[in-house]
Amino acid sequence: MSDKPEAMPADAPVREQAATFRPVAEGMEKHMNVYHPVLDHGFIAVKDYMGDDVSVLQMARMSYGKGTKSVADDRSLLRYLMRHFHTSPFEGCVIKLHVKLPIFVMRQWVRHRTASLNEYSARYSIMPDEFYMPEPSQLAVQSKDNKQGRGDNLTPEQAEEVLRMLKADAQRNFQSYHQLLNADEDGKTIDEDRAGIARELARIGLPVSAYTQMYWQTNLHNLMHFLRLRADVHAQYEIRIYADKMLEIMADWVPMTTEAFRDYQLDASRLSRMELALVKDLLAGKATMADAERYGMTKREIREFQTRFEV
Amino acid sequence: MSDKPEAMPADAPVREQAATFRPVAEGMEKHMNVYHPVLDHGFIAVKDYMGDDVSVLQMARMSYGKGTKSVADDRSLLRYLMRHFHTSPFEGCVIKLHVKLPIFVMRQWVRHRTASLNEYSARYSIMPDEFYMPEPSQLAVQSKDNKQGRGDNLTPEQAEEVLRMLKADAQRNFQSYHQLLNADEDGKTIDEDRAGIARELARIGLPVSAYTQMYWQTNLHNLMHFLRLRADVHAQYEIRIYADKMLEIMADWVPMTTEAFRDYQLDASRLSRMELALVKDLLAGKATMADAERYGMTKREIREFQTRFEV
Amino acid sequence: MSDKPEAMPADAPVREQAATFRPVAEGMEKHMNVYHPVLDHGFIAVKDYMGDDVSVLQMARMSYGKGTKSVADDRSLLRYLMRHFHTSPFEGCVIKLHVKLPIFVMRQWVRHRTASLNEYSARYSIMPDEFYMPEPSQLAVQSKDNKQGRGDNLTPEQAEEVLRMLKADAQRNFQSYHQLLNADEDGKTIDEDRAGIARELARIGLPVSAYTQMYWQTNLHNLMHFLRLRADVHAQYEIRIYADKMLEIMADWVPMTTEAFRDYQLDASRLSRMELALVKDLLAGKATMADAERYGMTKREIREFQTRFEV
Amino acid sequence: MSDKPEAMPADAPVREQAATFRPVAEGMEKHMNVYHPVLDHGFIAVKDYMGDDVSVLQMARMSYGKGTKSVADDRSLLRYLMRHFHTSPFEGCVIKLHVKLPIFVMRQWVRHRTASLNEYSARYSIMPDEFYMPEPSQLAVQSKDNKQGRGDNLTPEQAEEVLRMLKADAQRNFQSYHQLLNADEDGKTIDEDRAGIARELARIGLPVSAYTQMYWQTNLHNLMHFLRLRADVHAQYEIRIYADKMLEIMADWVPMTTEAFRDYQLDASRLSRMELALVKDLLAGKATMADAERYGMTKREIREFQTRFEV
Repeated sequence: MSDKPEAMPADAPVREQAATFRPVAEGMEKHMNVYHPVLDHGFIAVKDYMGDDVSVLQMARMSYGKGTKSVADDRSLLRYLMRHFHTSPFEGCVIKLHVKLPIFVMRQWVRHRTASLNEYSARYSIMPDEFYMPEPSQLAVQSKDNKQGRGDNLTPEQAEEVLRMLKADAQRNFQSYHQLLNADEDGKTIDEDRAGIARELARIGLPVSAYTQMYWQTNLHNLMHFLRLRADVHAQYEIRIYADKMLEIMADWVPMTTEAFRDYQLDASRLSRMELALVKDLLAGKATMADAERYGMTKREIREFQTRFEV
Repeated sequence: MSDKPEAMPADAPVREQAATFRPVAEGMEKHMNVYHPVLDHGFIAVKDYMGDDVSVLQMARMSYGKGTKSVADDRSLLRYLMRHFHTSPFEGCVIKLHVKLPIFVMRQWVRHRTASLNEYSARYSIMPDEFYMPEPSQLAVQSKDNKQGRGDNLTPEQAEEVLRMLKADAQRNFQSYHQLLNADEDGKTIDEDRAGIARELARIGLPVSAYTQMYWQTNLHNLMHFLRLRADVHAQYEIRIYADKMLEIMADWVPMTTEAFRDYQLDASRLSRMELALVKDLLAGKATMADAERYGMTKREIREFQTRFEV
Repeated sequence: MSDKPEAMPADAPVREQAATFRPVAEGMEKHMNVYHPVLDHGFIAVKDYMGDDVSVLQMARMSYGKGTKSVADDRSLLRYLMRHFHTSPFEGCVIKLHVKLPIFVMRQWVRHRTASLNEYSARYSIMPDEFYMPEPSQLAVQSKDNKQGRGDNLTPEQAEEVLRMLKADAQRNFQSYHQLLNADEDGKTIDEDRAGIARELARIGLPVSAYTQMYWQTNLHNLMHFLRLRADVHAQYEIRIYADKMLEIMADWVPMTTEAFRDYQLDASRLSRMELALVKDLLAGKATMADAERYGMTKREIREFQTRFEV
Repeated sequence: MSDKPEAMPADAPVREQAATFRPVAEGMEKHMNVYHPVLDHGFIAVKDYMGDDVSVLQMARMSYGKGTKSVADDRSLLRYLMRHFHTSPFEGCVIKLHVKLPIFVMRQWVRHRTASLNEYSARYSIMPDEFYMPEPSQLAVQSKDNKQGRGDNLTPEQAEEVLRMLKADAQRNFQSYHQLLNADEDGKTIDEDRAGIARELARIGLPVSAYTQMYWQTNLHNLMHFLRLRADVHAQYEIRIYADKMLEIMADWVPMTTEAFRDYQLDASRLSRMELALVKDLLAGKATMADAERYGMTKREIREFQTRFEV
C-alpha cells in the first residue's frame, strides 16, 4: 500500500490481532486501520467489517434450503444472485469506514440514507484549519453540454489565479473563525481579556471546502448502490475519487461479489423498451439506425445508443 | 398570519382550490402554499399533506377490529396510542414542506434519515447571494458548562464587531464565487472574453451560512421525533426556530395528536431505574434527597433531578 | 369499474367530497374508497394519496433551479428523471391502500420494508372465517425447470380433489379455532359454562391461507420497486394479481410516470458486460451466436439471451 | 451453556478460530455458532457480530473531538450516551442471528423494519414437519381486562384437550401437505404415477404454528428498540422468550451497554406532563393522591400510577 503516513491521525489505534470464531476476510484484514489518503487532506480507513463472500452464499443457501442441493458451485450461485437482484444476502456484509472529506463532498454523501454515521461536531470542538484545494489538473470550465459537469481544463495561469483566490478566501475565513472563537487550533485562548463566541456560531463563516470527518457504516448491498452512483463518470470528481478507493477495498474484501458486481451492474447496460425493440430488429436485419426515430427514441437517446453500441 | 410577503418566491404557485374525496384537515388548508419567514432569509411552506387526526384513528381501529367496539371516544383512543407508543398509525399522515435554510442548519436536518428530500443543486444552478446573519440578540459567548451551547450574550459593541466580520467575509466569498463563475446572480456573463469555472468547483468557497433550499417530506411519526430533538432547548437556536414553526403548523393540522404529543412526549419526563426507586422512597417517606447518592445516581443526575422536581 | 359490491366492508366510509388547496389527481379521485375485489375474498382500495405527475416535476425543477429553464416540456423532463434514476422526486407522491389478502401473500408483501403498515390484530380480535381457495385454473404441478414456479395445470378431477382437501382442512381449522375461543365469528360465547383460551393462542392453528387485512402506505418510488418485483412473471400468481391491480390504479393516478416507468423500467431490459460486448459485435458483424460462450456467458444466459432477442 | 445438542441443525458449520485485526468481544465469541433452544423446536444462534462496548465509545469520541478530553471514563461516557438518547454510536455494532421460530412469531418479528433478513423459502423447498405446541403451563384463558393478553391458566384437563385438538389439526395439515406435494419430508416422491402440485400452492394449508427459519441482522440501536417492545410483559409469551434469550446474549456481548440500557431504558419509567406535575406536588406536600384527577389523568392512568409508585 502506498499510503502516505501523514494520512493517519495521531490518535489512530495500534493494529492488534486477536482470535475470533467469526468469518475472516483475509483480503480485508490488511486494510484494517490503514489510512488511505484521498484528495489533499482526506482519508479513508476501514475500522471494522462483518462477513465475506462466503457469508453471502450461506444466507442464500439457508433461504433456498434443500432446494439448492443441485446448485453447482459458489461462484455460479453468487453470480446468479447478482444477476437476478436477490439483494438481501448482500445485506449480511457490513463495512465501517473512517472518512475525512470536504463538507461539500459530505453533503453529497449523506444523500445515501441507509447507512449509519457519526460526524465530528463543530458545536463541541474546534474545526482544524484544513480546506480542500483542487489539483490544478482538476480545474475546468463549466461544461457546455452537461449542466452539472466540467468542460475543458484551465490554462496553468488561469488555474493559478483560481487557486490563489480560493486559498486567500479560505485562509481569511479560518482567521476570522479563530478571532471569533478567541482560540487557536489547539483551543488555546488568544486574548485572555475577552470571551470567544460560541463554537456553534463561530463556524458559520467556514467554507464548504473545509474538512470534516465521520464514521460511516453501511451494508454491502447499499455500498454497491453508492458505488453505482458515485464511482460513475457523472459523479463529481471529488466524491468519485473516494468511491474509487472504496471499490478497490471492496475488491479485496469480497472478490467474487466484486467481479459479479462489475459484470452485472457496474459495467452492465440498460435497454429501454424502445431500444430493446430496435436491437431486436437491427439483429434481424429488419431495421437500420436510420429507422431509430420510429421506435420512439429521442434524438439524444439515439445519439447515446450509437455511442454505446458503436453503430 | 403575520407572513412578510417577501418570504414567498416569485415562482410560487397560485393557491387554487379543487374538490377531493380525500380527508381534508381544515386547519392545514390555510397553510397550503403560505410562506412563513424564518431567520433573515429563510422560510417554511406547506406544499402538500396527507391525513388528519381522524386518519390516525381509522388506521388504529382497523388493527383492533371489533375488539375496540368498546373504546369510548376519539380523544381517548388517540391519547392511548401516544401513551403506549403505538406509533404506526401516525405514519399514515404525511407532510411535504418547502424550506429555505442556511447550509449549516441543513447539515443538522439531514441527520433525520427517514424522510424524502430534494435539494437545490449548486452543480446545476448558481447559488443566490444570500447568507445568514444572526440577530445581535442571538450572539453569545461559548457556554462554560454546556460544551455545545451558548452562554451570556455579547455586548452591543461586541455583537456589531462580530457581525461586521461575518458579513465582510461572506460578501467576499460571494464576490469570489461570481468572479470564478464569470457570471452574476442571474447567470449573466461578466467578462465575455473568458470562461467561468465549473459551478460544482466555484461553490467550494461559499460559507456554510449560505442559504440553500429543499423540499422535505416526512410522516407524522418521524416529524414528532424530529420535533422532540429539534424543538428542544438543547438544539441549536437556528434549527430550533424552524422546529418551533413546524410545531405550530402541526397544531393546526392535527390538534388532537399535538395535544397528546405534548402531554405524553414533549412535556413528559423520564425516570431512570434509580430515579424511579428514589421517587418511590421519597413518596413513602423512606428517603430524603440526602440519600440520593445511595441510589447510584451521579452528582449531575442528582442536580438535574432536583431542578426537575424542585426538591 | 367492475367491482363486485360485496368487496366493500360494511363499515367502509361514505365517499364525500370537500375542497382542498392541494394538488388533485383527477384519475385517482375516482378510486378513492372504491373496493376492488382481488382473489376470492380479498380487495384493494385507495384510502388516501398525495401528489401527482406535476408534483414530481415540481420537486425536480426546484432541485435544478434556473438551470432547467431550457428543459422543453413536462413529459421530456419526467422521462429524463426515470431514465437516469433520479428517484427522489418520485418519493414526493404517496399512496395509502386498504388491502385484504391471504396470510401467505402478506408474508411476501412485508419483505418490502420501506412502507408503513397497520395489520388487523388476531390478538385483539377474532379472525373472520375466510380462507383462500385457488381457482381450479390456477392449480398446477411443480415446475420442473423453475424451482419456485408452477408447471402444467391439473386435470379437472385432480383440481377438484386438491380443492376438496384444502377446503376440508381449512374448515376444520376454523372450527377448532372457534371451539378453542368458545366464541363464534361475531364473538358470541358458545358454551356459557367454560372460558375460551386467549385469542393469541387460539389462532396458532389457523392456516396461512386465512385472510388478514392491512393499511399499507408507500411512496411512488417504492411502489415502482414493488411492482418491478411483484408484477413480474416470476412472482407468485397470488401476489402478482394484487400488483397488477396496483399498476392499473397507478396508471390512473400518474399516467405520465406510468408510461415512463413501463418504457424505462418494467418493459426495459438489462445487458450484462458480456451481453453488451456480444450485442456490439453482433451488430458489427464481428460475431455470431455461435461465439457467445467466448464472451463468458453461461449456457443459461445464452439461452435467455436468445429468447429475449429472438436470435 | 445448557444447550440441548438437538437444537443445532445437522449442517451447522464447525466452529473454527482465526486471527483478526477487528475488535473482538470476548463474551460474544463463546456464543458464535452455538444453537440455543427456544420453545419446543426453535433456536437462536449468533452467526456473526461486529463491534463491542469500546466501538460505541470510539464513535462517540470521534464526534466530540478534542471537546471530550475531560470526560472521565468509559462507563460514564457510555451511560451519558444512553441517558441522552445519543443513539448513533450504538448503530456501529451489528449482530447476525440464525433463528428458528413459528410463523406467527415471525409475523410479529418482521414488524421491525430496520433489519436485514433472509427467510427459508417454502416456494423453493419443502417445509419440515415441525409445528409449535405450547407447554401446558402456557395455556391460559383470554384475559378480561387486557384485550390482547392471557388470563388464568387452564386446568390440566382443559390443557390436555386444547393440545390434543391443536396437534391433531396440525398433523392433518402436514399430512395433506405431503399428499398434495406427493413427496415426503425428504422430498422423496410418494406415488410415482402422479405429479405433486407446486410447492408454493401446497403450503397454503399449513398452520401459522409451523416453524420457519431466518437469518436476521440488526444494529445494536435497533436491537434495543426490539427488546424494549418484545422483552416486555405486554409482548406475547412466544416472542418474549426469544427476546429474553437475546437480552442474555447482549449482556455477554456489550455488558456496559446492557447495564446502561437497563438503567435508562428497560427498567426506566416515563412521566407524562400531568404525572410530572403530580409528583412535584406530592413531593412538596401540596397534593395527595385524592387530588390526582385534577391533574387531568384518567382513572386508568391514576391506577397505573399508584401501582408504579406504590402510593
